[in-house]
Amino acid sequence: MEEKKRRAVVLLSGGLDSTTVLAIAGKDNFACYCLSFSYGQRQVVELARAKENAARYGACDHLVLELGLDKIGGSALTSDLAVPKSDGIAASLTSENDIPVTYVPGRNTIFLSYAMAWAEVLGALDIFIGVNAMDYSGYPDCRPDYLAAFTNLARLATKVGVEGGELVIHAPLLALSKKEIIQKGMELGVDYSRTHSCYDPDESGAACGRCEACHLRLKGFAQAGLSDPAVYKDDGGQRHV
Amino acid sequence: MEEKKRRAVVLLSGGLDSTTVLAIAGKDNFACYCLSFSYGQRQVVELARAKENAARYGACDHLVLELGLDKIGGSALTSDLAVPKSDGIAASLTSENDIPVTYVPGRNTIFLSYAMAWAEVLGALDIFIGVNAMDYSGYPDCRPDYLAAFTNLARLATKVGVEGGELVIHAPLLALSKKEIIQKGMELGVDYSRTHSCYDPDESGAACGRCEACHLRLKGFAQAGLSDPAVYKDDGGQRHV
Repeated sequence: MEEKKRRAVVLLSGGLDSTTVLAIAGKDNFACYCLSFSYGQRQVVELARAKENAARYGACDHLVLELGLDKIGGSALTSDLAVPKSDGIAASLTSENDIPVTYVPGRNTIFLSYAMAWAEVLGALDIFIGVNAMDYSGYPDCRPDYLAAFTNLARLATKVGVEGGELVIHAPLLALSKKEIIQKGMELGVDYSRTHSCYDPDESGAACGRCEACHLRLKGFAQAGLSDPAVYKDDGGQRHV
Repeated sequence: MEEKKRRAVVLLSGGLDSTTVLAIAGKDNFACYCLSFSYGQRQVVELARAKENAARYGACDHLVLELGLDKIGGSALTSDLAVPKSDGIAASLTSENDIPVTYVPGRNTIFLSYAMAWAEVLGALDIFIGVNAMDYSGYPDCRPDYLAAFTNLARLATKVGVEGGELVIHAPLLALSKKEIIQKGMELGVDYSRTHSCYDPDESGAACGRCEACHLRLKGFAQAGLSDPAVYKDDGGQRHV
């Protein structure tokens, strides 16, 4: 007799991290309900990849919600601020103490709030999110303390919490480096050519190879002894690692 | 020399409670940035009232964000579930232990997340929300513990929090009954004829007089010894108090 799978809401951006998380949630035998967000105009390629990966991994449903984050502004990812670029290493774009301009105020809180809402409607007690150690040097809402605080909030905010149920926020990449995330994903058969990380792709979806996200990604592949299968613009990123 | 006002984000639905909160924030000398949300189709009249009141109280800005809550469903306010009606008293629709079907999963968490994001962009440390004692008998995300948990989350989620700033969530109606809220608003000159509470208005915006929100509102006015100046459908609500 087939066991009924537990439902989980999986936050899926279409990037390297969240696609790896989806593969992990699938391997852990969750019935996955993928949730993506459309905000600003730079995520078009990412959302196409999210859709593709939700289908590829047999998600039960995939919801894409439009957010008004571009109206709020405050980030290079949602407003007219320039995405910083460099031919050097990623560390030049994000130091330990500075919060990068690509930080979107409140983003993970908004994402998790919607995930919590949908989980409540679905009767799910599990949420997967792809935050990781490389992020939380710079983004305040990627740290373990933050995730614990959200779990506590969810306990008080929901019907299921009031009734004694505990929502679990799974962040399986939290302690992993980009290299380790890529190695994990390769074990699970993730096709990284169909994931998108670049903050500033061209119209065809090719990555710039020079923004913070490209640098981190390329460095991760290099450290894993692999070549990134994603498409880069002709002035490529591979040589900048 | 005029003192520079502190900025505050005020969650404004256009209903009786949030309009009273806006009047309170104004009296407390905050520069008010009003934030409203469009979700589902039933809030059209409410949003028109929100716009009107933001202007009336001299808000510095008024942002209306579209939410995808109708895609998530799970509530009579955002899906096709029927809004419960009764000719009896409000207590018949919300008992102490049941969560009403008009509860929107995650709603206040999503609202506060956006308010927190906008506050961060504005450099504001204050958020006003109109939750009150009448609500938190039924809605989990209207209780003092919940607001404390959100404050803790905001401390960890934001740049300003990481840097030692503390976001304050003002809920000035928390301990007030509907009667006391109305009395407070009357003192501050709120025009309640231009606030909307009904979950199921007709096309002209007239209130049904029979849903949970109408019952609470009408009871509040009656207990304050006042007549509700809002427009009701011709089978009126005033007699059902």
